[in-house]
Amino acid sequence: MQVRMVKKILEANDRIAEENRRTLKDAGVLSINLMSAPGAGKTTLLAKTIPVLAGRLRFGVIEGDIQGTYDAEVIAALGVPVIQINTEGACHLDANMISDILPEMPLADIDVLVIENVGNLVCPAEFDVGEEAKVMLLSVTEGHDKPLKYPLMFQKSEALILNKIDLLPHIDVDMEKIRRDALALNPKLKIFEISCRSGEGMDAWITWLQTRRQGR
Amino acid sequence: MQVRMVKKILEANDRIAEENRRTLKDAGVLSINLMSAPGAGKTTLLAKTIPVLAGRLRFGVIEGDIQGTYDAEVIAALGVPVIQINTEGACHLDANMISDILPEMPLADIDVLVIENVGNLVCPAEFDVGEEAKVMLLSVTEGHDKPLKYPLMFQKSEALILNKIDLLPHIDVDMEKIRRDALALNPKLKIFEISCRSGEGMDAWITWLQTRRQGR
Repeated sequence: MQVRMVKKILEANDRIAEENRRTLKDAGVLSINLMSAPGAGKTTLLAKTIPVLAGRLRFGVIEGDIQGTYDAEVIAALGVPVIQINTEGACHLDANMISDILPEMPLADIDVLVIENVGNLVCPAEFDVGEEAKVMLLSVTEGHDKPLKYPLMFQKSEALILNKIDLLPHIDVDMEKIRRDALALNPKLKIFEISCRSGEGMDAWITWLQTRRQGR
Repeated sequence: MQVRMVKKILEANDRIAEENRRTLKDAGVLSINLMSAPGAGKTTLLAKTIPVLAGRLRFGVIEGDIQGTYDAEVIAALGVPVIQINTEGACHLDANMISDILPEMPLADIDVLVIENVGNLVCPAEFDVGEEAKVMLLSVTEGHDKPLKYPLMFQKSEALILNKIDLLPHIDVDMEKIRRDALALNPKLKIFEISCRSGEGMDAWITWLQTRRQGR
């Protein structure tokens, strides 16, 4: 009974997600659903990426949080359009939440729309919000067991960004195991190793983002 | 419609949770629901705590994971009774899952039952599993904005363990803000600062755990 119900919710979600996807595609926007556990650095990644691409890619951001506007304020300070969605307890964004606020986004002036999901390594991967690509962020401090423990997000993502590599000398983490297990789950996964703090590895991610936008 | 349904699920959950709580109390067991985001160090905390208390407190552990038995194997190697619950996609444990396996736990031989929840800073806080106390772990690498962004878990926990403090010299985090915001949400919250890696601060946590068990 409960399973059928959840299935129905997901089916309804998928229909609305398809509508969102069509709206975004018609507007020529690359939409990215950015997902991670809490504190992996999603907002910091955007704050370090958007200014580098100023004049080349025009960004828009939808911030998903349970409550508050902390991340949206960081993004707004960069001078890009940002809308905050407060889920009021819900642990992920769904297609309906995006559908509700999409008319308020100036899509004609946006090349890349980043939908920053609620910090959660589980549920966001289950809910299509109508994005073109899922990108996930994993802080290397979270440990090398994450692909095998939370496989769905690794399976569904186009790119995996391993953040906080500046901390590698101070922690016990097997980077090769992360790569191996993630690629076993998803052989096409593009993996980047970066530090938003030091800037290391950011170039490759930024180049991929530009190429992904152009190659559509 | 959807909201009513969720409410009904929570009401049914709470009834079963009360039964679990009675069973555990009648057996003289202190039960702890251990919660955190993925990779904050729940299993490592147990692996560093249980051997120190050998001969003084007898532990049992229930491991909640979406899939796999990685954490349960770590705990089993310590020689304590452990049962793995695989949620198969669900992002939290609920009272029914605990109720199902409680008869298999040798409660007469256990002083402290730790229920290690699925790594998730949101949903586990919403579902009473019948524990006596909620304890949460926050890796300091997750950043100082977590209490205000994920308030419910901070509000519901008796103790907050700030882990990975050995990394403080290498990251930008305002520990005083974490403390201030967490205590504003929950003035009775007991806060520990520890490093499972270096062992720093473990004594205070272990003393608290012993006192909490005795003072019942």
